[in-house]
Amino acid sequence: MIRAAILGASGYVGGELMRLIAGHPAIEVGVAFGASNAGQKVTAVHPHLAIAYPGAALAAWDPGLLNGCDLILAALPHGETQRLADQLLAPGIPFVDLGADFRLNSAAEFERWYGEPHSRPDLLETFTYGLPEFFRDEISHSKRVAAPGCYPTAASLALRPLVEAGGIDRQGIIVDAASGVSGAGRAASAATHFCAVDGNYRAYGLINHRHTAEMEMVSGASVLFTPHLMAASRGILATCYARATGPCDPLAILREAYAGEKFVHVGETPPETKWATGSNAAFLTARHDERTGTVLALAAIDNLGKGAAGQMIQCANLMLGLDEGAGLSNMGVYP
Amino acid sequence: MIRAAILGASGYVGGELMRLIAGHPAIEVGVAFGASNAGQKVTAVHPHLAIAYPGAALAAWDPGLLNGCDLILAALPHGETQRLADQLLAPGIPFVDLGADFRLNSAAEFERWYGEPHSRPDLLETFTYGLPEFFRDEISHSKRVAAPGCYPTAASLALRPLVEAGGIDRQGIIVDAASGVSGAGRAASAATHFCAVDGNYRAYGLINHRHTAEMEMVSGASVLFTPHLMAASRGILATCYARATGPCDPLAILREAYAGEKFVHVGETPPETKWATGSNAAFLTARHDERTGTVLALAAIDNLGKGAAGQMIQCANLMLGLDEGAGLSNMGVYP
Amino acid sequence: MIRAAILGASGYVGGELMRLIAGHPAIEVGVAFGASNAGQKVTAVHPHLAIAYPGAALAAWDPGLLNGCDLILAALPHGETQRLADQLLAPGIPFVDLGADFRLNSAAEFERWYGEPHSRPDLLETFTYGLPEFFRDEISHSKRVAAPGCYPTAASLALRPLVEAGGIDRQGIIVDAASGVSGAGRAASAATHFCAVDGNYRAYGLINHRHTAEMEMVSGASVLFTPHLMAASRGILATCYARATGPCDPLAILREAYAGEKFVHVGETPPETKWATGSNAAFLTARHDERTGTVLALAAIDNLGKGAAGQMIQCANLMLGLDEGAGLSNMGVYP
Amino acid sequence: MIRAAILGASGYVGGELMRLIAGHPAIEVGVAFGASNAGQKVTAVHPHLAIAYPGAALAAWDPGLLNGCDLILAALPHGETQRLADQLLAPGIPFVDLGADFRLNSAAEFERWYGEPHSRPDLLETFTYGLPEFFRDEISHSKRVAAPGCYPTAASLALRPLVEAGGIDRQGIIVDAASGVSGAGRAASAATHFCAVDGNYRAYGLINHRHTAEMEMVSGASVLFTPHLMAASRGILATCYARATGPCDPLAILREAYAGEKFVHVGETPPETKWATGSNAAFLTARHDERTGTVLALAAIDNLGKGAAGQMIQCANLMLGLDEGAGLSNMGVYP
Repeated sequence: MIRAAILGASGYVGGELMRLIAGHPAIEVGVAFGASNAGQKVTAVHPHLAIAYPGAALAAWDPGLLNGCDLILAALPHGETQRLADQLLAPGIPFVDLGADFRLNSAAEFERWYGEPHSRPDLLETFTYGLPEFFRDEISHSKRVAAPGCYPTAASLALRPLVEAGGIDRQGIIVDAASGVSGAGRAASAATHFCAVDGNYRAYGLINHRHTAEMEMVSGASVLFTPHLMAASRGILATCYARATGPCDPLAILREAYAGEKFVHVGETPPETKWATGSNAAFLTARHDERTGTVLALAAIDNLGKGAAGQMIQCANLMLGLDEGAGLSNMGVYP
Repeated sequence: MIRAAILGASGYVGGELMRLIAGHPAIEVGVAFGASNAGQKVTAVHPHLAIAYPGAALAAWDPGLLNGCDLILAALPHGETQRLADQLLAPGIPFVDLGADFRLNSAAEFERWYGEPHSRPDLLETFTYGLPEFFRDEISHSKRVAAPGCYPTAASLALRPLVEAGGIDRQGIIVDAASGVSGAGRAASAATHFCAVDGNYRAYGLINHRHTAEMEMVSGASVLFTPHLMAASRGILATCYARATGPCDPLAILREAYAGEKFVHVGETPPETKWATGSNAAFLTARHDERTGTVLALAAIDNLGKGAAGQMIQCANLMLGLDEGAGLSNMGVYP
Repeated sequence: MIRAAILGASGYVGGELMRLIAGHPAIEVGVAFGASNAGQKVTAVHPHLAIAYPGAALAAWDPGLLNGCDLILAALPHGETQRLADQLLAPGIPFVDLGADFRLNSAAEFERWYGEPHSRPDLLETFTYGLPEFFRDEISHSKRVAAPGCYPTAASLALRPLVEAGGIDRQGIIVDAASGVSGAGRAASAATHFCAVDGNYRAYGLINHRHTAEMEMVSGASVLFTPHLMAASRGILATCYARATGPCDPLAILREAYAGEKFVHVGETPPETKWATGSNAAFLTARHDERTGTVLALAAIDNLGKGAAGQMIQCANLMLGLDEGAGLSNMGVYP
Repeated sequence: MIRAAILGASGYVGGELMRLIAGHPAIEVGVAFGASNAGQKVTAVHPHLAIAYPGAALAAWDPGLLNGCDLILAALPHGETQRLADQLLAPGIPFVDLGADFRLNSAAEFERWYGEPHSRPDLLETFTYGLPEFFRDEISHSKRVAAPGCYPTAASLALRPLVEAGGIDRQGIIVDAASGVSGAGRAASAATHFCAVDGNYRAYGLINHRHTAEMEMVSGASVLFTPHLMAASRGILATCYARATGPCDPLAILREAYAGEKFVHVGETPPETKWATGSNAAFLTARHDERTGTVLALAAIDNLGKGAAGQMIQCANLMLGLDEGAGLSNMGVYP
């Protein structure tokens, strides 16, 4: 068995990684680092995993514990991977990072959107962007992968094939998206209080959400991105608008782009976030509105699945030469 | 007391009308028609009103019962008001209709979006569009008012002042909106099943939702409208995108437009649907994104409040010479 | 107008008090103390009240500001009223306290359930228990009222008439209740995180929840109480089980007990928490199961309404000689 | 591969069976009967399964299609299995029935609780009750299994070991339980409308819910059962109350009873329904309240998992000599 080291194991993504790995035929948890809960049992932090991890405990960060591990999966707050980079990369173990630190290929773009200088610009080019449907070969040959953010995964799946096919204008794209609350992490705050979210819908991060940079990089287009918080634990729906460059069948373009993909479904029906819950699946549709000259493209994923832990495992499978879908489901838990 | 006849009293809007009227200082329920529940007690259909309407029952439609009424409030399925028009209008009683039948000023537009001819085009011009913040005087002097749809109320409040101020392009406007499930009415269906909505988010009516026509009429601009269904009983958030015509301060435009309005609040913070729950309030904000040349304007309302029953009462107050806010709250029930 | 001083104005109960008072015909807010948010505008803390309180700000605690006030409404954390008692009681202003400090009539019981000595046992007898349906006269003649907890309000409304009528055994009563999350207050914690509550149901405080003492005092019976947290912002349902003493018609007993009450409805249909949302209403039903010799009695309220702010206003109305229902609704906002 | 015939494939349990089977190492879907949706593609009815069942369609009932199948899994409305019994049993294929038809061992009890005579009392004794933790051997040697109802699964897991250990009185047991809406099935109705459930909590079936009979049969005790509907798609929590017969450590009894079980976890923390979502796991705790002489025992499951489809697969695995946990997860999808 491949032994995985998990960083950020006490968060939602960490818990999802542990759930997926417990069902993975070739990977097991070697060590689970959970800074804020170090020393506690996994059961205390993730009671839904109590049967699968009866005795396991979370460890404090100690790079020595990476010895004997064959894979590193990091789900840390933004900035942490830069700080720990030397320790994480030293052993040369295949490494999948979910943080934003090494996703962008430009330190200037990072600084522009994150409001702080990048401390390790020298490493940016050594990471591959971990969206397998677009960069499968690169990921397979890489030892360092930066897994995409949840919103950019959804938006890029919807937009990139349309941009590449020349069907939509690269300027003036709008991504209007809704996310479940787990995307905001496990930290308790006024914004994640049940009563603040239940039955509510609101936009946030108007104009300047950091994921904009990533969407623009991957889709190759200029994007105005508006995230919304919805009353759900999981799920992202990206509703994307672009000007059509001319007659265009966006649904056909998406169908062709994702033919043979085992985690992407393109259909006529507008996708629903709940179809993807707990899975690594993405559901897409598209329309051309001739009246206004607009192309709509919609993508639904589970932000913790294809938008985080699922995609990390998908990348790891590729990096390790395993079946790309090992340990992953393409079916949501519904209803 | 002014005696109101309510049509469609067994639906959600009907129940909200009865709740508002029970707390109204000058209006009382004269007769409540509830076709599908005629003969049943109000308590059986609206148990939350059991104390306020202990003995009342719902009546079958009978135009003779309009005698002695001073106000008609109709919340009927689309098409019904056309069919009943002669009976409803004959007595010359002030009439507020929530249906879509008499909102548009063009029979051609009605046919285009509703897919059927208008049976009473002769009456279209006799109705005033019931959005008090824009047409207060006309409503005050009218005996026939067509209250706006829920989505158009939100979108128009956000967009019309910006269009009128010349701050945004009249072409290429996008309205991306989310609605609570009560907007779909009380009828049980696969789409309104709890399990289909709980924790879910999805778009519907892509490209051709009927409310588009109304938004275009009121805002004076070309609109692509995408409604979404969110996991909430009440609430609408309209997130609107338009190209700026030049330097522009949309927040200042909205603040000026709604200064002195007792049901519209313009603020810096992105509005939340839940702030408006149970009230007639609307909460707005706006931004100018210079990077992409886009203006964002957002409006949150309760679809059953400012988007339906509340606005009907607001119109009726104006028509009857009462205080415009009588019986209405500008505060949501929160959390 | 009567000027009310509110303590704890930045919490959920505080916000509800301000909402109710804004619609009250005879009371207005004199000063709103909000310790943790002192200096902030009401709008910032309670954006749903932005139109009603456009310029108001929250004050830091200063007993001098009670001058000129005619009513004190305190919604403070447990223990605070004991600490502030001398300052609060000195001016002799009618005072309604929602805290647990002065509800119980025995310092020993307080210490037993709250795990700490009572610092002002001398004051216990000077407070009247604020459940108007049982103690209307006492409240009317009192200047110090301790408003009941939310769970005890629901359980006592269901149980006390049955105990008093001798229909149920005073031993072995079980109260199994569910509460919305606002009952846990506005503080952000792991337990109130949206993702921890959404779609979830769990018991807490097994065997030793503090509200047990209050239930036993008011119902005059021995109670085992199990609270549950449900996925709702508001609402409490108490499902109570007791052994029947013999043939018994509990529904008739409740109907008689609450005949003429304007905020209590007794009906055949099992009550739903949502019927009461935003109101001061309570909905009850009961059954006698002859097969097992058990009486069931159920009560649904809004924990912030009849379970907190609504009942405080109801008590204040009585104390001030106003109409008991002034500023209160007996209809929930539904759906 | 073992080929399974699924009856009731268009319902929630049917969809869950198809999801589990798609991930099962030794079972595949042979034919999926979906009466109300016969002829439709699986994708249309279960869009979350679109990738796993791209071309499959639902069949109309035709006993001939059982040829070539090695397993029958029926999730039909109550009464249907009686009606189809001869056709279903004729081929002698291992059969797991989720309906209530063959769970009780007494036709009289069936008639008493279901209000109609049992049409096939001759078959009652030929079925084994499918709760593996209690009847593992019988199930392994049976070709006909009646899988338990969702509520009885939860209640029996909590109660039976305590009854058998003599720790609790067999009289006067109360089961107060809450269920997610999927337990009411996929049919749209006023009671399952999103707006009727969202933010709501209510009891139903007071005194006479049919599952009572099953609970009494399995636990060997007299039970008063009160089900509640909660605002969740999935999940059941049973909170059970019984009189202690004397000093008693119910937690120790449960721990011993379920030692070695791979789907049952007994812990100190009160279990939460969400821990089990999408899995076959059950989470239990218990307490002895010496003050009132009461034992509490709580069990949380996913009503579609351990309460339906998961348990059906667990039984099938036993009947077919497969690993008992094949295709099943003991970890919920959380949050």
